[in-house]
Amino acid sequence: MRLSVRLLAASALALSLATPVLAQDAATIQRAERIRDAALRENIALDYVTQLTTRFGARPAGSKAEQDASAWAADYMRQHGFRNVRIEQFPLVGWERGVESASIVGPRPQGLVVAALGHSPGTNGVIEADVVRFDSLEALNAAPASSLTGKIAFIDAGQMVRMQDGSGYGPLSRIRGAGPAAAAGKGAVAFIMRSAGSDEHRMPHTGTTRYVEGRVPLPAFSLAAPDADQLSRLIGLGETVRISLSSTAHTYETVSQNVIGDIVGASRPNEVIVLGSHMDSWDLGTGAIDDGAGGAITLAAAKVIAESGRRPARTIRVVLYGSEEVAQPTNTGNGGGAYLRNVQAAGQLENHIVAGESDFGADRIYALRLSPGAQNSDFQRAATQVLYPIGVLASGEPELHGGVDIGPLAEAGVPVFGLAQDGTRYFDLHHTADDTLDKIDPEQLTQNVAAWAGLVWLIADSDVNFRTMRPGETPAH
Amino acid sequence: MRLSVRLLAASALALSLATPVLAQDAATIQRAERIRDAALRENIALDYVTQLTTRFGARPAGSKAEQDASAWAADYMRQHGFRNVRIEQFPLVGWERGVESASIVGPRPQGLVVAALGHSPGTNGVIEADVVRFDSLEALNAAPASSLTGKIAFIDAGQMVRMQDGSGYGPLSRIRGAGPAAAAGKGAVAFIMRSAGSDEHRMPHTGTTRYVEGRVPLPAFSLAAPDADQLSRLIGLGETVRISLSSTAHTYETVSQNVIGDIVGASRPNEVIVLGSHMDSWDLGTGAIDDGAGGAITLAAAKVIAESGRRPARTIRVVLYGSEEVAQPTNTGNGGGAYLRNVQAAGQLENHIVAGESDFGADRIYALRLSPGAQNSDFQRAATQVLYPIGVLASGEPELHGGVDIGPLAEAGVPVFGLAQDGTRYFDLHHTADDTLDKIDPEQLTQNVAAWAGLVWLIADSDVNFRTMRPGETPAH
Repeated sequence: MRLSVRLLAASALALSLATPVLAQDAATIQRAERIRDAALRENIALDYVTQLTTRFGARPAGSKAEQDASAWAADYMRQHGFRNVRIEQFPLVGWERGVESASIVGPRPQGLVVAALGHSPGTNGVIEADVVRFDSLEALNAAPASSLTGKIAFIDAGQMVRMQDGSGYGPLSRIRGAGPAAAAGKGAVAFIMRSAGSDEHRMPHTGTTRYVEGRVPLPAFSLAAPDADQLSRLIGLGETVRISLSSTAHTYETVSQNVIGDIVGASRPNEVIVLGSHMDSWDLGTGAIDDGAGGAITLAAAKVIAESGRRPARTIRVVLYGSEEVAQPTNTGNGGGAYLRNVQAAGQLENHIVAGESDFGADRIYALRLSPGAQNSDFQRAATQVLYPIGVLASGEPELHGGVDIGPLAEAGVPVFGLAQDGTRYFDLHHTADDTLDKIDPEQLTQNVAAWAGLVWLIADSDVNFRTMRPGETPAH
Repeated sequence: MRLSVRLLAASALALSLATPVLAQDAATIQRAERIRDAALRENIALDYVTQLTTRFGARPAGSKAEQDASAWAADYMRQHGFRNVRIEQFPLVGWERGVESASIVGPRPQGLVVAALGHSPGTNGVIEADVVRFDSLEALNAAPASSLTGKIAFIDAGQMVRMQDGSGYGPLSRIRGAGPAAAAGKGAVAFIMRSAGSDEHRMPHTGTTRYVEGRVPLPAFSLAAPDADQLSRLIGLGETVRISLSSTAHTYETVSQNVIGDIVGASRPNEVIVLGSHMDSWDLGTGAIDDGAGGAITLAAAKVIAESGRRPARTIRVVLYGSEEVAQPTNTGNGGGAYLRNVQAAGQLENHIVAGESDFGADRIYALRLSPGAQNSDFQRAATQVLYPIGVLASGEPELHGGVDIGPLAEAGVPVFGLAQDGTRYFDLHHTADDTLDKIDPEQLTQNVAAWAGLVWLIADSDVNFRTMRPGETPAH
């Protein structure tokens, strides 16, 4: 009961203070609330992600599985009322894990659970060498030149800090990116690290490491957390630890593709709102939370809007990007870049009103982040009214980049928004074999669909223009 | 404060009702309480299990790792004041996993995470066949004769029911034992099952399956829970699922050994109390909860008693049994049987007062189970007084079998006791790669040591005789 009273109060407050940034205001908001509630009652998100992950399993960038899943998803879109459904292919340097193994060979033999990092070269046979341990990238960087000649460099920077917003990931993903080059610079023959993850399972977390001059300079592996513990403890007992590594990982020339489908706008079809997520997954799991869920949420939200009885003014475009996981700063072969290039070539960049990306699992959304100009605007107030009853508040932090897939659009000037998901358990599963369908909570998945549907309706059936909004131009209450 | 009052009341009650089954009564109980508290302050359990699992990793029955760990443990016992430390070897049919893999080959290729069951024969190349799914062993048994010719039988009987006492395990371990023979009887070429486990990770649970005429009749594998889900869903979508299996698993002639050490009794050294656990582990994890913890708890408890300032009257014997995991009903090659045969050959069986076994992880003990004659006895009342303050109550259910290691002693007439551990999360980890040191909670481990130390002191420094106790002969209050 207290909740209802507070909702009514919040609603009255928002309505009383609204100024006509949204031409339709009250009617648009009411319709957004009805769409939100329709999504809570029924949506296709769980069906989509169940079929996707079950029929195709893992969908590595550039693989036949990614290609087959993309063709299937295009059909799924067509069957669910999307228009202009198309697949746009682009060339890609793919990477295949092949067969890998790691073990301690001395002082006594023990198995280790590892995963090669994305784009790691193979070992060309077996690498056997002593391990030198560091507790940070800085410590490795500070090692004397050539001090690791013939050694395996090991960074154990401790378990990832568990945070709702996932901010524990940054420090560890930097080690993953820069570690192989740093180790190579000191003469090491391979690089190993504690996984960038927050779990304590025998589940190594893969992920791409960084190219230097067009390739990853050393074979590079993540250890599962208990294996990193074990190695650190064994070294701590004063033992000289010798390790054997083998991997047949390799790159190859292939293609990937973006799958695109529209809910065509009724009155201003050329104005496009992009809802992004990615189709590819890492090879170890079945890509349920990363990022089958993102496709499920955005597809289902668009579908709820399409079936709400009235098409919105603007076009809602769902893009299932290919090849997000292997993106390199120096590698244009990913879906986000390919989409931008096609849009620019067609002269349609200016038509892109706004873009949002869902790529952080399927747990509940707790915050809305708008582009800087829309912070504290009447649009933000209207959105908060629609999203507050399902637990989403406006964040004081604006959205600037959006994510890997819509990042290229953002860099080209397209405003972005973010619906921040609870990432508390995301990095238990991220890039591991454990990223499977059972990890999705259907109730939280549905809350995501409702938030996306309500918010996207507000944008799609209005003339709000994030490009021209400036914080000073909208009333700050 | 309420707890203290209740403790005093329980203590007064126990003392007022005590009859002289324990000759020393109050003094013995007080010393048991002091020993319990000494164990809570400091003990060697965590040191032992940390060194054991870190130095040796997995210790499969009959392996060099088991042998090396046994030699190390004997030294550890000697260094910590145990006497008559000895290693008793026995012959064993060992089993090695080798290299294994499984994948769905159709309708579309997908990897599967599996583990061959203990004593499963290898596949002698690759087995590729269609899968027939059953939801119970009974359903497989009811299939028409020859109906599985050339097929792979798959039982998915659902997730193990999570129970404090682990009683969800029985129904699933029966499938593991009997499944391969049942499948072979219908013409199947291999047997696969959902793991006997309560987790939802990509962690298959291995474990031994049953011999028929001296061997396991078919290659047999456990699927991780998410992989069983995936297979069941794919079949549920109407797909004919074809699977490829390969395994180089094989048996070999080897030896295993029991490690035995005594805290020699001061006045009645020939009267022996056996504290059992096992040294071997499955090959996937490092055998921390199964059963490094058991050795840690019993060793540490005996050591606390030995250092309490007075040796007990009777001898406390710690036995680290070899080769518990591969025990077959038809196979005498396990540590429990070997120990019994040696004791019988030496005419010492009658000297064995009682035996207890710690082999259910390291989580807190909640119940004491005594042999039927000791139920409701004054001994039980004294033990409850010592154990109640650390959360252990007497169970109405007597202990009859003890466990795999002391089972042969029990069958030969030696009374047994049990200190029941909280098994709520035990089957998340049991027989998986995830059985690693980090899964042990040091605080709960210490509670285990305190309970064992207090209880064993009560037995060791008294003339209580469980063999001759009969429920009717002791006062029932």
